[in-house]
Amino acid sequence: MLRSALRIQTIMACSFSSKTRPKVAVILAGCGVNDGSEIHEAVSVLSHLTRNGAEAECFAPDIPQMHVINHAEGKEEKASRFVLNESARISRGQISPLTDLLCNAQDFSAVVVPGGFGVAKNLSDFAVKGPQMTVQKDVADALYAFHKSRKPIGLCCIAPILAAKLIPGVTITLGKSCGDEWPYKDAIEAAQKMGANTEEKGVLEVTACPENRVFSTPAFMYDGKYHEVDDGIGNMIIELLKAVK
Amino acid sequence: MLRSALRIQTIMACSFSSKTRPKVAVILAGCGVNDGSEIHEAVSVLSHLTRNGAEAECFAPDIPQMHVINHAEGKEEKASRFVLNESARISRGQISPLTDLLCNAQDFSAVVVPGGFGVAKNLSDFAVKGPQMTVQKDVADALYAFHKSRKPIGLCCIAPILAAKLIPGVTITLGKSCGDEWPYKDAIEAAQKMGANTEEKGVLEVTACPENRVFSTPAFMYDGKYHEVDDGIGNMIIELLKAVK
Repeated sequence: MLRSALRIQTIMACSFSSKTRPKVAVILAGCGVNDGSEIHEAVSVLSHLTRNGAEAECFAPDIPQMHVINHAEGKEEKASRFVLNESARISRGQISPLTDLLCNAQDFSAVVVPGGFGVAKNLSDFAVKGPQMTVQKDVADALYAFHKSRKPIGLCCIAPILAAKLIPGVTITLGKSCGDEWPYKDAIEAAQKMGANTEEKGVLEVTACPENRVFSTPAFMYDGKYHEVDDGIGNMIIELLKAVK
Repeated sequence: MLRSALRIQTIMACSFSSKTRPKVAVILAGCGVNDGSEIHEAVSVLSHLTRNGAEAECFAPDIPQMHVINHAEGKEEKASRFVLNESARISRGQISPLTDLLCNAQDFSAVVVPGGFGVAKNLSDFAVKGPQMTVQKDVADALYAFHKSRKPIGLCCIAPILAAKLIPGVTITLGKSCGDEWPYKDAIEAAQKMGANTEEKGVLEVTACPENRVFSTPAFMYDGKYHEVDDGIGNMIIELLKAVK
């Protein structure tokens, strides 16, 4: 039997007035952990943004996916899909090409990138090239614009690898480097090779890099339960929004 | 500035011991609001199940989708996708054909169906036939099995229409019948034509039908914010798990 029958009633009350409600850009990478954005992470980002009084707007590069994975079988399919169109499944059709964000970056107070292999396959080529990676041009331009304006950048799961490449000396977390529940720990070494400082953090924890205003959380770098990842991302979004001017 | 910096720490503590942890089947309908399961609803169902101490296992019928919608443009694509394979994007690859659930229904304590147009296009033909709808055979067989065993059935958004068809005289909610923020209110009249009793409920509310052990919540029948839908589904999952024997 349930110990508690507490009913959930929007517990993180809206924290900004309607006039000061910050707009936060969310950069998606497709739809599905193996070839796009990790769906649970993207949903958590959007939900915790609105829960904490921010407005969320989604963007994605209008480019072909690196490939399409049949998620039931774990195999590549002979198919072609586009990152923008598939990302729109997560954002319920409300999405713009990432180039639009660069044109309107002044309207946004922060940017967040959920994780998933799409970050390493579509937003960058980290999955193929490791520390010799490059970041997709629209993604790099957008993240540079926010960094240059000293606006907060939130990163989940593998997405901090983008900051490792773009922001010399940034401090990030990619989770922990030992334990069977951390299956992607090689990414930590790769980030260090690119010059990033890495912190070992648990799934509920957040690494803040005040100098660069970058906030990261391990999310599904940890083989956790759905609600643990949701809670960790919630903690990251709270820290991110506290840093919004 | 944020009013509260409360850090989220898995606030809905695990409510079942590991020995009594109930297994709950989640029936998916594809991946994306316009041709599959509504992604936010499916994610909320899974997250609130693990948050409240249940184990979640996903199933989907292994059938072609009715069609494929480009979610960025809102137009049908010339493409073919399968419900099981696309649903696996939400469940991170962990999914079984729905026929497997029927073979193992005795292992499960409850079943939940998130919403999305996939319920009306792939799990049934409600989108085409309205009150003259039929329910896809595997879906009908599974829901009948749980109903016959008096195990709780949880339904989000448009999914209660399945109960309206399968369970004569069931009481459900499909949200409210007036207001611009309720864009799908015609479904209420259709459910009534099929003999269901309908309750007008807000996005945070749950309709319980104790006689049939059916629990429903409006979710994205309401044009709400992401976290409002998440909270409403959380409330439904709590009521569902309280009804697990």
